[in-house]
Amino acid sequence: MTSQAFMEAVKERRSIYGISKESVISDDKIVELVQEAVKNTPSSFNSQSARLVVLLGDSHNKFWDMTTNTLRAIVPADQFEQTEQKMSGFKSGYGTVLFFEDKKVVDGLMESFPSYAQNFPIWSHHSSGMHQFVVWTALEKEGFGASLQHYNPLVDEEVKQTWSLPDSWQLIAQMPFGKPTVAPGEKEFKPLDERVKIFK
Amino acid sequence: MTSQAFMEAVKERRSIYGISKESVISDDKIVELVQEAVKNTPSSFNSQSARLVVLLGDSHNKFWDMTTNTLRAIVPADQFEQTEQKMSGFKSGYGTVLFFEDKKVVDGLMESFPSYAQNFPIWSHHSSGMHQFVVWTALEKEGFGASLQHYNPLVDEEVKQTWSLPDSWQLIAQMPFGKPTVAPGEKEFKPLDERVKIFK
Repeated sequence: MTSQAFMEAVKERRSIYGISKESVISDDKIVELVQEAVKNTPSSFNSQSARLVVLLGDSHNKFWDMTTNTLRAIVPADQFEQTEQKMSGFKSGYGTVLFFEDKKVVDGLMESFPSYAQNFPIWSHHSSGMHQFVVWTALEKEGFGASLQHYNPLVDEEVKQTWSLPDSWQLIAQMPFGKPTVAPGEKEFKPLDERVKIFK
Repeated sequence: MTSQAFMEAVKERRSIYGISKESVISDDKIVELVQEAVKNTPSSFNSQSARLVVLLGDSHNKFWDMTTNTLRAIVPADQFEQTEQKMSGFKSGYGTVLFFEDKKVVDGLMESFPSYAQNFPIWSHHSSGMHQFVVWTALEKEGFGASLQHYNPLVDEEVKQTWSLPDSWQLIAQMPFGKPTVAPGEKEFKPLDERVKIFK
């Protein structure tokens, strides 16, 4: 693969909101892809703080039902129909990847390297962002469409209880994915000369 | 490019500390690569908060001299030789990419969407992490070696003054790169079954 092909993959990754349950690749392939992403995406001091959960089938449906019910309790009644439609759209997908960072690992770094202590939670977020990007792009290369959502911390406790996850796992982002049913819209770009500067 | 080729690129990206000033690709190609990364890497609400500065030639050298001098004032004298060698190693490279996030953009999101206000600084860090990853991987695909460093906030003010950058640009990370002179060491991996969970 050339650098140009890599950049094409970066460019093709978009937020896809119209997704269906139609199968694109095998579940084993999805799991392999997520495992490879977790194995090879960097983390500060190679601390490997990322934890990923792949929800498929009933578990995927359950996550979005749970999120819908949680939101029903807090979204004003006259706005809830819109919220419900949005949740229904995510539930229409094939699966969801949940991105966590293990607080136990981050706290361990803070104790071991006190002079950098305040930076480790920030670097943990950088690493989580990288994991999100790698999984997103890999799913799109396989023919899925995905988007990045953030219903944490509203759903954290119920998620941990439902799937018996360690209490130290902090939910950072959720990525519903499925076969794309709608092409992404045009993307607007700010002028690059205001965003990138070169000095020799 | 297949998903497998994308994952190969992800896997090939490593922290490379031994780097030289030997040219690998043209400066124009480096700039193009960074511009493409900034154009196509996502940000929350497409806010495009990332700002990147590419330092080449004298500017690259100046950055590492500046950082060395800043550290000289705060690192205990008996540890400074090691610090100086490390800085000298980064200066031995071809260039440095500085990653910023524009606080003005993030503050604007916080004002426009008060119910998510506390999340925007975190999502800005996720996006910065993605930018770091994309540039790192693209540089390695072109034959460079790179690593991620964090001498912010120590050097922030001098950097902004030296290259007349807007005060709202917050320095997040620094990436020295150059032609690799040393292969990366073996990488240790935690068991994946403790880091990735699947539920159907």
